[in-house]
Amino acid sequence: MAAAIDIERIRRETPGIGESIHLLAAGSALMPAAVVDAVVNHTLLEARIGGYEAHAKMSAALDGVYDSVARHINAGRREIALMENATVAWCHAFYALPLRSKSRILTCEAEYAANYVAFLQRARKDDLTIEVVPSDEAGALDIDALEAAMGDDVGLISITWVPTNGGLVNPAARIGEIAREHGVPYLLDACQAVGQMRVDVEEIGCDFLSATGRKFLRGPRGTGFLYVRERWLETLEPAMIDHFGAPWVARDRYELRDDARRFETWENSYALRAGLGAAIDYADAIGIDVIEARVKYLAEHCRSALRAHDAIRLRDIGDKQCAIVSFTAEGVAAEEIRRRLAEAGVVIGASDPSSTRIDSERRKLPDMLRMAPHYYNTEAEIERAVERITSIL
Amino acid sequence: MAAAIDIERIRRETPGIGESIHLLAAGSALMPAAVVDAVVNHTLLEARIGGYEAHAKMSAALDGVYDSVARHINAGRREIALMENATVAWCHAFYALPLRSKSRILTCEAEYAANYVAFLQRARKDDLTIEVVPSDEAGALDIDALEAAMGDDVGLISITWVPTNGGLVNPAARIGEIAREHGVPYLLDACQAVGQMRVDVEEIGCDFLSATGRKFLRGPRGTGFLYVRERWLETLEPAMIDHFGAPWVARDRYELRDDARRFETWENSYALRAGLGAAIDYADAIGIDVIEARVKYLAEHCRSALRAHDAIRLRDIGDKQCAIVSFTAEGVAAEEIRRRLAEAGVVIGASDPSSTRIDSERRKLPDMLRMAPHYYNTEAEIERAVERITSIL
Repeated sequence: MAAAIDIERIRRETPGIGESIHLLAAGSALMPAAVVDAVVNHTLLEARIGGYEAHAKMSAALDGVYDSVARHINAGRREIALMENATVAWCHAFYALPLRSKSRILTCEAEYAANYVAFLQRARKDDLTIEVVPSDEAGALDIDALEAAMGDDVGLISITWVPTNGGLVNPAARIGEIAREHGVPYLLDACQAVGQMRVDVEEIGCDFLSATGRKFLRGPRGTGFLYVRERWLETLEPAMIDHFGAPWVARDRYELRDDARRFETWENSYALRAGLGAAIDYADAIGIDVIEARVKYLAEHCRSALRAHDAIRLRDIGDKQCAIVSFTAEGVAAEEIRRRLAEAGVVIGASDPSSTRIDSERRKLPDMLRMAPHYYNTEAEIERAVERITSIL
Repeated sequence: MAAAIDIERIRRETPGIGESIHLLAAGSALMPAAVVDAVVNHTLLEARIGGYEAHAKMSAALDGVYDSVARHINAGRREIALMENATVAWCHAFYALPLRSKSRILTCEAEYAANYVAFLQRARKDDLTIEVVPSDEAGALDIDALEAAMGDDVGLISITWVPTNGGLVNPAARIGEIAREHGVPYLLDACQAVGQMRVDVEEIGCDFLSATGRKFLRGPRGTGFLYVRERWLETLEPAMIDHFGAPWVARDRYELRDDARRFETWENSYALRAGLGAAIDYADAIGIDVIEARVKYLAEHCRSALRAHDAIRLRDIGDKQCAIVSFTAEGVAAEEIRRRLAEAGVVIGASDPSSTRIDSERRKLPDMLRMAPHYYNTEAEIERAVERITSIL
């Protein structure tokens, strides 16, 4: 393990290491110094020379953020829009899609709350049906069931790749094959996937992909991006526009930009964008495959350590699992454990059943704890965290 | 002048003073150190303890940003949503409003491009008519013409209070009287107004108001807010939702938040929000009336200095004018002057006719220059800027 990754250096380059044992990359990961510097330096430059002037001075580097994102997910730079966060990115794709009355949206049991409420809103407004494709025995979206659910009235397949809890990795690429075979648009929520595993839009075959900066990418809060496959750029009209995405070319006419940035608005935080770019470049310098191998290894280390205790019950499902480790502890409420751990300098998360309501109801899940190590964590940190938990129980 | 305002102190507290003569508050103003510190300190805290943990630690202060915004515009805190920028804020109000087919949107000649393209989109989609209310002789929206245009089929009055160029201040409160009299929703774009003049939503009588942080408020780029009058919180459904604004309360049901934050999404940059709060508190510590008096005085100083030169033509209109001074110069293109001034350390702006296309076409406006002093500027800076311009001509 870790032959190709210099953990000591990575930890030295992470200001939060040593402050706490931070095991919540699924919430908001610790930023590397390069990201912090990018945000702070751009902010200081704006203070010194002005906001527009700082943008002009740094325009080449800021423009390069599109290249960084595109390269990271194997897309073209025309297919990338930088957004405020992942749900804004997701919403812009979802609400733009023309869906015929009576058509069906296919989704998965562990679909994220943010997306599901949007389904409900459009279902009512546009007379659509939401159909939850059952999971297979292991807990992932059942590919055969998806295949069986297909039909001419399917307007959209919309899936969360890595749910916010449950450890699950849905079979994004298998779903993509089915979507392509049937010619159905495929929207993939990759919020928890980017930065912890290889994301390749060609391999996945999705039409749209949304992601955040703050989680496994280690970027700043308030950043995200949307991928829109080139062929959609011919026709897709954003549900909301301003004159950046849709310049006012004649009194009674606007013209949509010809790239994915039609979903953006004129004004943005370039300090945060600089941070997002630095985060992606930092990840790519390490190498996403190296990162993926290490987070998998550390997540398994978590699971083994937790499994050793009778009072702890792992709640993870799926054959392929990610670096989000979900569990409950007998006799003590999740929030109580989270709070006491935080007081002891160990940061993990608690998650509410309403964030993945369908999966939670099906599995009768209570509030759960989430431990989400990143590559900068160590085995020793994980062991200390688990010791702390067991000492509370 | 300036008895109540300590310009020297304000300039000491502004890191950009001395770096350039910055006369572009209408673009992105110079931030005070308090704003820069708020953004940087929160970013560093996030780096040290984690993004969610920094939010939790600073939650009382961050929550106070709503109080600061509300107090600044005489609203209730329930009526405030913090947004990524002004056009996102504006769009969220505009696209949420139910407008019956065949209804008319009334707007002004100097309406901003961002808003107008959105009118065009909804006009086509929802079969609406856009009606541009003529201006009076001085150039502001003609109140009598607005009165005459009213009728049962008016669905919305949507006005830019202070247009991006032209020096104009539209009669926002008079428009509000008419809107209330006729029971028509009134959406006010206050992007260029907040921070340079008193904004009182009760006095104006608007139903919705959108604003940015980066201009006269001196906040960070990537910030803005939306005001939604309390009575709309009963019924108004955002055009896009996530589980922050609309928690997923049962499998087939979400419930909108009961305050204006239904227009927000779950994830945000709290560093930028902290900066926005610091900017508003800084302005209020000086006092908005004091600020308003000084920016008016400095804008008049600009106008007098420019008027003294035959080759310069002021393009400002309206009886009541703001701190955005628009002009053209004979024989040299606006962009050329802007660039050469920037090289000489004088920052002013150039603006394109398409940003206010209807007004530009009516007045046959070419590219214009914009000089927008803020209270931190001095008479001497303005005089030096004008000298520079005339030396180019």
